[in-house]
Amino acid sequence: MGVDLGGTNFTVGLGEANGRILAEAKQPTASHEGPDAVLERIAATIDHLVAGEGRPLAAVGIGVPGLADAAMGVTRFLPNLLTQWRDVPVSAILSARLNCSVHLLNDARAATLGESMFGHGREARTMIFFTLGTGVGGGVVIEGQLRLGRLGAAGEMGHICVQTDGPWCGCGSRGCLETFVSGPALTAEGVRLLLSGNAPRLHELCGGNPARVSCEKLGEAARAGDAGAQAALERAGSFLGQAAAAAVQTLHPDLIVLGGGVAVLDDLLIAPMRRTLLQRVRMFPAEDIRILRSQLGERAGVYGGLAAAIRGGILPVLENSL
Amino acid sequence: MGVDLGGTNFTVGLGEANGRILAEAKQPTASHEGPDAVLERIAATIDHLVAGEGRPLAAVGIGVPGLADAAMGVTRFLPNLLTQWRDVPVSAILSARLNCSVHLLNDARAATLGESMFGHGREARTMIFFTLGTGVGGGVVIEGQLRLGRLGAAGEMGHICVQTDGPWCGCGSRGCLETFVSGPALTAEGVRLLLSGNAPRLHELCGGNPARVSCEKLGEAARAGDAGAQAALERAGSFLGQAAAAAVQTLHPDLIVLGGGVAVLDDLLIAPMRRTLLQRVRMFPAEDIRILRSQLGERAGVYGGLAAAIRGGILPVLENSL
Repeated sequence: MGVDLGGTNFTVGLGEANGRILAEAKQPTASHEGPDAVLERIAATIDHLVAGEGRPLAAVGIGVPGLADAAMGVTRFLPNLLTQWRDVPVSAILSARLNCSVHLLNDARAATLGESMFGHGREARTMIFFTLGTGVGGGVVIEGQLRLGRLGAAGEMGHICVQTDGPWCGCGSRGCLETFVSGPALTAEGVRLLLSGNAPRLHELCGGNPARVSCEKLGEAARAGDAGAQAALERAGSFLGQAAAAAVQTLHPDLIVLGGGVAVLDDLLIAPMRRTLLQRVRMFPAEDIRILRSQLGERAGVYGGLAAAIRGGILPVLENSL
Repeated sequence: MGVDLGGTNFTVGLGEANGRILAEAKQPTASHEGPDAVLERIAATIDHLVAGEGRPLAAVGIGVPGLADAAMGVTRFLPNLLTQWRDVPVSAILSARLNCSVHLLNDARAATLGESMFGHGREARTMIFFTLGTGVGGGVVIEGQLRLGRLGAAGEMGHICVQTDGPWCGCGSRGCLETFVSGPALTAEGVRLLLSGNAPRLHELCGGNPARVSCEKLGEAARAGDAGAQAALERAGSFLGQAAAAAVQTLHPDLIVLGGGVAVLDDLLIAPMRRTLLQRVRMFPAEDIRILRSQLGERAGVYGGLAAAIRGGILPVLENSL
C-alpha cells in the first residue's frame, strides 16, 4: 500500500510488487484534525481498499511533506501540516493499527524511489530527481539505492544555493533554487511580467488578470512566442541547470528527472537546463546524461509510497544505522 | 604499492594492507619524457623498493592528475602532464611489466580513498573530501564506498559553481569554487591586497615583495591581525561553505575533510566555511557534520595509491560496469 500525505489531500493506492496499482482513494487532509485522526482515516481507507480487493496487506509506505526520520519512522518537521505533526511516530501508530510493517519517507524521496523503481529510473543506475511544486525537493539514487542519510534528509536539491545573495527562501537561507523554480516563484514572475507590459501574449491569455497567471499559462505564452515568458523560463531552466551541475560534479549520474506540477513545462525548462549543465560541467563528458520529465507525473507520490512499502524494509539496515 | 604521479614529481610508497608505509621514494616526473619512459621509471622504482624490503608485490594503485577511466585503467586527459598522456593504458602497461594488478584513479579520488581508509574517514560512513592545491579537486565516499561514476569522474568539488557570473575557470566554466580557493587564486588575492596597501601585516611579512606572497604568508598575516588578509580568507572559506552546502543538501554526509597544500590554513578557512554551511543548510540539522583538516596531509597521494591497490580490485565491479 502506498500513501501520499499532502497538506491538502492524502492519496492511498493498493498495488502489487511489480508496481501495478489496483485501486486508489483520495481524501482531504483537513488540517484542523490532529495526526491521530488523520492516521486513523488513512488506516480506515487502507482497510476499505484491502477489503475491496480481497488481498492480504503486506506493507505500507508513506511519504510525508517534510523532514521525517526514516530509520525511526517518526516525523520531525512538516511545515505544510500543523505543528502537531512534530515527532509523531507514524510508523509505530499505523503498524500497530494495521498489523504490518510501515515505512515512512519524505514525500520527495518517496517520489524519487517510485521513479527509480517504476519510471525512467528503471534504465539508470544513478539518478537525481527534482520535484518542482509548491516547494522544490528531490532525491538521489546511487547505484540503485535511494540515498537517505541519517535522517532521510539527503536530496534537498531545492535548497542548493544558485545565487549567493539571492532572494530569501522559506528555509532561512537565500538564493536557494526553490526561490527561482517553485510553482509560486514562477507564478510571481509571470504576474510581474504581465503587469510590466512586457508579456503581451501572457496578458492576452490571462485576459489581463494577474490572478489567472499560472505556470501553465506562462508556458502557453512562451510557446506562442511571448519573448518575456520565454526569457523567464530560460532563466528558471538555467538556474535548474546550475543546481543540477553541482550535483553532477559531485555524483556523475546517468539520469536527471524533473517531477512535480511545474514539470509540465517540460522542454521549456529542460532545454535551457541542459544548455547550462553542459556549460558548467567541463571536467568530464556530460552529453550522455539524460534529462527527462517524470514518467509517473502526479502519481509519483502514490507510486513512491508503494516503492517504499516494497523496498522499505531494507532501507534502514543499509543506509541509516550508524 | 601506492603511486602518486604529479606534474613535477612522482612518489612511490610500499605499504602493508593496514596502511603502514614501509619505504618511500620520490623522483622528478620530467615532462619531456613520454609516458612509456615515466612508467618504466615508476616500475623500476617499485622493483627497487620491493627488492629492498624483500616482500612480494600484491598490487599497485596509482593516482594521476586528471581524468582517468578507472574501470578501463586508461588515462583520458591529464592537463598538467603533456598531451602524450591522453588515452594511455597505464594499468595494462604497468600490470604487464610488474605482473600484478594495477588500479588507476584520479589523484584527488585516490587521496579521498586514502583519507577514508587511513585518515579521519575511518570514523565516518559518508565523507566529502576537498583537495585544495594548484587546482581544486575532491571525492565522495558514500556508505564506505568511493563514488566513481562511469569514468571515475564523480567528486569534482572544485567545479561546483559558487558565483553564476564569476571569474572564468581553467575548465571552461565560470565562478567555479576553484577560482576562489585554489593556491594560485588565494596567492593572487594576497598580491592584490599587498599592492592595494590594505594589508599592512602582509606587506611587512613579505618585505613589500609581491613575489613572496603565498597562502602561508596570507594565513600568517591573518593570524597577526591583518584585517585585509582576514577578510580574504573569510571570503574564501565562505565560498567553500557554499559549495560544501550543495554537496551536503545532496548527500547529508557525516564528515567533510580539507586536504591539499591550502589546507594548512586550517581554522582560518574552516571557521567561515562552517558558518556558511550552517547558514545555507536549514532543511535538516547540520551542526553535527564535522569539518576537519586531512589527517594524511601531503602524503594523502601515496596513501591514496596504497588504498586503491588494496581496494582497487572491487571498485570496477561495484561501481563502474553499466
